[in-house]
Amino acid sequence: MLVNGKPGNLISIRDRGLLYGDGVFRTFGASHGKAQQWPLHFRKLQHDCAALGIACPDEALLSAELNNLLAQHPDGVVKLIVTRGEGARGYAPPVAAEATRLWDISPVPEYPADWTTYGIKARLCQLRLGHQRHLAGIKHLNRLENVLAAAELSDAQLPDSGIAEGLLMDTAGNVIGGIRSNLFIVSKGKLVTPDLSRCGVKGVQRDRVMAWATQHKMSLQVRNIGLDEVLHADELFVVNSVIGLWSINELEHCRLNGFPIARQIRKKLYEEDA
Amino acid sequence: MLVNGKPGNLISIRDRGLLYGDGVFRTFGASHGKAQQWPLHFRKLQHDCAALGIACPDEALLSAELNNLLAQHPDGVVKLIVTRGEGARGYAPPVAAEATRLWDISPVPEYPADWTTYGIKARLCQLRLGHQRHLAGIKHLNRLENVLAAAELSDAQLPDSGIAEGLLMDTAGNVIGGIRSNLFIVSKGKLVTPDLSRCGVKGVQRDRVMAWATQHKMSLQVRNIGLDEVLHADELFVVNSVIGLWSINELEHCRLNGFPIARQIRKKLYEEDA
Repeated sequence: MLVNGKPGNLISIRDRGLLYGDGVFRTFGASHGKAQQWPLHFRKLQHDCAALGIACPDEALLSAELNNLLAQHPDGVVKLIVTRGEGARGYAPPVAAEATRLWDISPVPEYPADWTTYGIKARLCQLRLGHQRHLAGIKHLNRLENVLAAAELSDAQLPDSGIAEGLLMDTAGNVIGGIRSNLFIVSKGKLVTPDLSRCGVKGVQRDRVMAWATQHKMSLQVRNIGLDEVLHADELFVVNSVIGLWSINELEHCRLNGFPIARQIRKKLYEEDA
Repeated sequence: MLVNGKPGNLISIRDRGLLYGDGVFRTFGASHGKAQQWPLHFRKLQHDCAALGIACPDEALLSAELNNLLAQHPDGVVKLIVTRGEGARGYAPPVAAEATRLWDISPVPEYPADWTTYGIKARLCQLRLGHQRHLAGIKHLNRLENVLAAAELSDAQLPDSGIAEGLLMDTAGNVIGGIRSNLFIVSKGKLVTPDLSRCGVKGVQRDRVMAWATQHKMSLQVRNIGLDEVLHADELFVVNSVIGLWSINELEHCRLNGFPIARQIRKKLYEEDA
């Protein structure tokens, strides 16, 4: 673990990342000392920092720190947190704050192999995401909605149920995505993914799927999606930078099988990451 | 500063308070070694922890830590943060997490004396609060909306403008309160304060004003309030546990003066805190 470039795992209790969730983060895989899609993750970090008015650290500095981390731990799930840093008491962002840089790496989670091959069971969460267009799309540190949604899946009866992801709707009744993933649906040969201009997180893996669609001249729509449309889709899949791509084979008593489009996309993503 | 009862100012970068804003906090004044309204703050802390499913530390333990802190620093603004603690990677709350307890104390801010006597200037913020009924009312660590709103007041042209607080509306057009305070309006001899069931924070000082109204048999309504009603009120005031009570004498070109109701309430609150 690195804190502002030095080995360590501690941060000041006056850091605004803790006080207000005033920061952003990135999570991605690394294997054999190489981070997956680091340039895309840096670009997204830069975008999210700008959206909150946080001074994003230089790419050269962060790349050097990442290399240090991976020299020690060549394989795992990397987490990078950038907070606004410390400042005087109160919500107002300090004029000249220096951002805090935190790196952590954890073992790669061991998901059942058939989740990738045959898809996962997903469940619809009760919690509805609120709208806040100033924060929508950003992977910031205000993640209590995700925590509460994940808690629903941890309910006593569920650990043996094999539910691998929860889907979230917003207060207006649109399906927004997974608790920790972005959602795509395939319907009549077209790809559709939710509009995230009012809530949700725009992940790097989502961008990559969208880029795939463009490269392959496949129709792609970004728009509001109702639950009915999801339940009647030909294919459903969720993506993020750690899980890669999982098709959904069961959602609210709807069963799906055969994922021809998802299989093509997954193959491409995995080849690029290998 | 105390971290889990021991002197220190550092916390693990794996604490969920930092990772997700998964925690709650309290801010209140202390003078001559005595914390103001500690029993009310503990009760609110307990309520907020329960709302998020965080195991609230015992009152005896927290009271002892508070006394230790005040023995060293008898005067200041005390901040208590309770987070869900550490756990495995991922949003799901750990089953048996031990909450993290953080205490900090800062000098009492020196506000101009006439803000208490003659009231303050306030401004309406552009940012609109989103609705999330599972988090509304709770003083949790997901405070980016407050940060962005406070940033509006820090804009280049404003430091000399004497604006002491920003007022926030929600996405539905209701006035919700101050960036760091609760709002009351006095209209035709009646007290009204915004309904906070969809956004906003229910502060301890708000409860005290509501209790005052009951004791003094003054009509009090908790309901949606539109901007027009605020701009046409007889009195406007904001409260929190650090500032106490400030009347608003100027808001969006509306000027108010003479605050008979606010003066009565403030007198009572200050006497109790003395």
